[in-house]
Amino acid sequence: NSNFLLLAGPCAIEGEQMAMEIAEKIVAISEKLQIPYIFKGSYRKANRSRLDSFTGIGDEKALKILRKVSETFDIPTVTDIHTALEASMAAEYVDMLQIPAFLCRQTDILVAAAETGKAVNIKKGQFLSAEAMKFAVNKVRESGNDNVFLTERGSTFGYHDLIVDYRGIPEMQLNNCPIILDITHSLQQPNQSSGVTGGQPQLIETIARAGIAVGVDGIFIETHPDPANAKSDGANMLQIDLLEGLLTRLVQLRQVVKTF
Amino acid sequence: NSNFLLLAGPCAIEGEQMAMEIAEKIVAISEKLQIPYIFKGSYRKANRSRLDSFTGIGDEKALKILRKVSETFDIPTVTDIHTALEASMAAEYVDMLQIPAFLCRQTDILVAAAETGKAVNIKKGQFLSAEAMKFAVNKVRESGNDNVFLTERGSTFGYHDLIVDYRGIPEMQLNNCPIILDITHSLQQPNQSSGVTGGQPQLIETIARAGIAVGVDGIFIETHPDPANAKSDGANMLQIDLLEGLLTRLVQLRQVVKTF
Amino acid sequence: NSNFLLLAGPCAIEGEQMAMEIAEKIVAISEKLQIPYIFKGSYRKANRSRLDSFTGIGDEKALKILRKVSETFDIPTVTDIHTALEASMAAEYVDMLQIPAFLCRQTDILVAAAETGKAVNIKKGQFLSAEAMKFAVNKVRESGNDNVFLTERGSTFGYHDLIVDYRGIPEMQLNNCPIILDITHSLQQPNQSSGVTGGQPQLIETIARAGIAVGVDGIFIETHPDPANAKSDGANMLQIDLLEGLLTRLVQLRQVVKTF
Amino acid sequence: NSNFLLLAGPCAIEGEQMAMEIAEKIVAISEKLQIPYIFKGSYRKANRSRLDSFTGIGDEKALKILRKVSETFDIPTVTDIHTALEASMAAEYVDMLQIPAFLCRQTDILVAAAETGKAVNIKKGQFLSAEAMKFAVNKVRESGNDNVFLTERGSTFGYHDLIVDYRGIPEMQLNNCPIILDITHSLQQPNQSSGVTGGQPQLIETIARAGIAVGVDGIFIETHPDPANAKSDGANMLQIDLLEGLLTRLVQLRQVVKTF
Repeated sequence: NSNFLLLAGPCAIEGEQMAMEIAEKIVAISEKLQIPYIFKGSYRKANRSRLDSFTGIGDEKALKILRKVSETFDIPTVTDIHTALEASMAAEYVDMLQIPAFLCRQTDILVAAAETGKAVNIKKGQFLSAEAMKFAVNKVRESGNDNVFLTERGSTFGYHDLIVDYRGIPEMQLNNCPIILDITHSLQQPNQSSGVTGGQPQLIETIARAGIAVGVDGIFIETHPDPANAKSDGANMLQIDLLEGLLTRLVQLRQVVKTF
Repeated sequence: NSNFLLLAGPCAIEGEQMAMEIAEKIVAISEKLQIPYIFKGSYRKANRSRLDSFTGIGDEKALKILRKVSETFDIPTVTDIHTALEASMAAEYVDMLQIPAFLCRQTDILVAAAETGKAVNIKKGQFLSAEAMKFAVNKVRESGNDNVFLTERGSTFGYHDLIVDYRGIPEMQLNNCPIILDITHSLQQPNQSSGVTGGQPQLIETIARAGIAVGVDGIFIETHPDPANAKSDGANMLQIDLLEGLLTRLVQLRQVVKTF
Repeated sequence: NSNFLLLAGPCAIEGEQMAMEIAEKIVAISEKLQIPYIFKGSYRKANRSRLDSFTGIGDEKALKILRKVSETFDIPTVTDIHTALEASMAAEYVDMLQIPAFLCRQTDILVAAAETGKAVNIKKGQFLSAEAMKFAVNKVRESGNDNVFLTERGSTFGYHDLIVDYRGIPEMQLNNCPIILDITHSLQQPNQSSGVTGGQPQLIETIARAGIAVGVDGIFIETHPDPANAKSDGANMLQIDLLEGLLTRLVQLRQVVKTF
Repeated sequence: NSNFLLLAGPCAIEGEQMAMEIAEKIVAISEKLQIPYIFKGSYRKANRSRLDSFTGIGDEKALKILRKVSETFDIPTVTDIHTALEASMAAEYVDMLQIPAFLCRQTDILVAAAETGKAVNIKKGQFLSAEAMKFAVNKVRESGNDNVFLTERGSTFGYHDLIVDYRGIPEMQLNNCPIILDITHSLQQPNQSSGVTGGQPQLIETIARAGIAVGVDGIFIETHPDPANAKSDGANMLQIDLLEGLLTRLVQLRQVVKTF
């Protein structure tokens, strides 16, 4: 199968029913379109702007929901960790550990994630060049784990904007690891006065199509039945009913690109 | 025909033989691939870093070559102008006047170009947002000319780099005019210590594919039989023997995108 | 006299009475503080966002006002030009020709300005590095004019902001020419949706003090009795009644810096 | 005493003798110039680009050296922490905990630092606006600790450069907490191909003077007897023999600024 990989799910695990519903819908779409699928959900949000922002429903509770999703639908799962200590805990429940962009230079977290033996997906820091990600990859590989992924999620462009630099995709592919494009967080508009990160969900397809065209190996997307009422990142999540149309078009693009 | 438009040719008109050879090759390719084609060549270079840089072979001589190319191959031509006075002079020889990026805010040049009645292609300033280009479009339209095009050629990203922001393509399309992607100058690396702008020609296809995928209406490319010995912009021009392969792949992508 | 140089006046010459009033006030302050003073006024605005923006009261009328200011108060004057043709015209009326930032790479304008024999003040393009300004300086010098100044006015930082990079001041001083800091336009916020450039006048003193501390040779400031009703650039001009206090503090800082 | 505060010392604690020598020299200078002084030293480096970079001599060993410096010279000390768990450990040895720029959004670290009751110095993320730092300040204050400082260390400007935006100093002062300017890391040049961050030590005084002129409350500087042979950040540290001259000039500037 030469299709792209899909990492998708809600931003945060808000509860079991919601996680199962989202998973069920995406599983149906990904089977129909023959897209290899990894369910994504955060069990804790650690870097919210404000202390009163939603941070999660409890670590163990959320991790168990991730495991249940995995077992129910027979799919792998991914979650993000924020300290070295979280690595082994989360690794008991999920198949892939994701390193947040702000933390991609923290050696101890990368090494701890690597040492679990799980796949490690490192998000490129907004302040890092694509080329510099080789150092993060090497920290994982030199810790004995070659199952490493890199994810582009935009670079700092002034205080209130991010830009995806597609030149970074082939650059990061020089590391011989799969490169994922996060089409949700790449559209964030940081540093809003309100302390709530802004978004541009109408541009999701633009960002995604360009990624498939240049040859990304996977797409990361956050989706929710009702983004306006999601407990975090609502400004950027895709309304889940729009997902099949989007993925259908991306698969068509991919089929052409794979012949090049 | 729903194919994309091609603006292509050498950076500067270095001589008649060279112009005719390049035109002949591109005409053959564009006919084969059914791509509407406009021959591009600058008759004067006005903003070189250094006083000793090549600036042209003489205005009238170069403009006559542009006309000869047009008549010989029965194709339209485009050239860039740098002052209001040049507009009417160049308009006698070419079909489209191009406004350089640094000059896209100069009202008198935009108005003079508009008043020739020729098509006007405005390059987006590296320092301007896609949204702000509506003001440039309006200056042309309010001067009685609705035949206006916009061209993306990268935005300032630090001192030594440009980034193409693909979110700007649908934004500029809100102006209901064709949006061209300049896949040559978008890869410039400005402000080099040498005074010679750098380039990244190996990334031309990356930049171009992403553009076609998001729906640009045209591609602008500078090409030369021997870029290393071109008199200007050699760092970014595509070796002309690589053009057919590139365009073939872009047409295949376009065919899928047009079905969306 | 080791004080800094002052280039100040309204953005545009709106009329004789207003120009004379502003000049009179600034002359009084600059004599009191022993600051060498050059009156600044634009006789035409060429790069407004919108076609309906104010562009001037007529070239000759405005230039004659500049000459009258010069003769009345026995002070030099500066104005900006936008084409090579304007250079010799403006040079008949003023002592210094200023090259706008967007145009600082246009060789013909730099050469034409240089050939008038007048002082030439080149604004650094928002898209250029301080280092790259050596090429602009050389174009003037190689045209036989060594009376050249450079002015910092901010660098592109995202679409809607400019930042002054003070590292560029000593870098540009390597050219052995006076470096001016434009504390008005450095605070512009470009690409506003309205087509009217925004500003942050409350930060004028912050920007200015830092400049004096790092050793700039002059300060450029636009000032107006009633910025809110000025015909251009009102968002950034200093209320003229605040000028003496500001300059007094800058002179005190300068006196310390000159001892280093 | 209305002088600015000084946070200074080596990048990393490389050993006791070196720490004591540096402290002794800076104490002598700060007493002479009547500058309140806090000794700075990292006991561990957590975010080096490469796994083979120097990360420290051992946590406890380094922390004990910090305590010995404090007791010997009767001065407060500051060190940076990288996880919530490190907060209480480090708080046993030092007077101020510093939150690294990459980590300034990590709620758990800010809260843990706040709960030690020690002073908390938060470095502004390179990807954050000055305004957004209010959210970090609030996380500390809402955890019951009002002894909070903010430190500017440059903002991302393209991939390979940082710029200090002095407009951010008065903006951050709106939080009613002392604002420090880090004149060492503000000059970093990140994302070098070598994996070793570059620097511009010749610009230290430029960056520092501008900061004092706009009213920063303190200066952070890393200094070393022999920067070229330091185990980390050698590219930016000031040769310690140059420190007294620099501080002498900054104190003179400060004396003027305080009268405004």
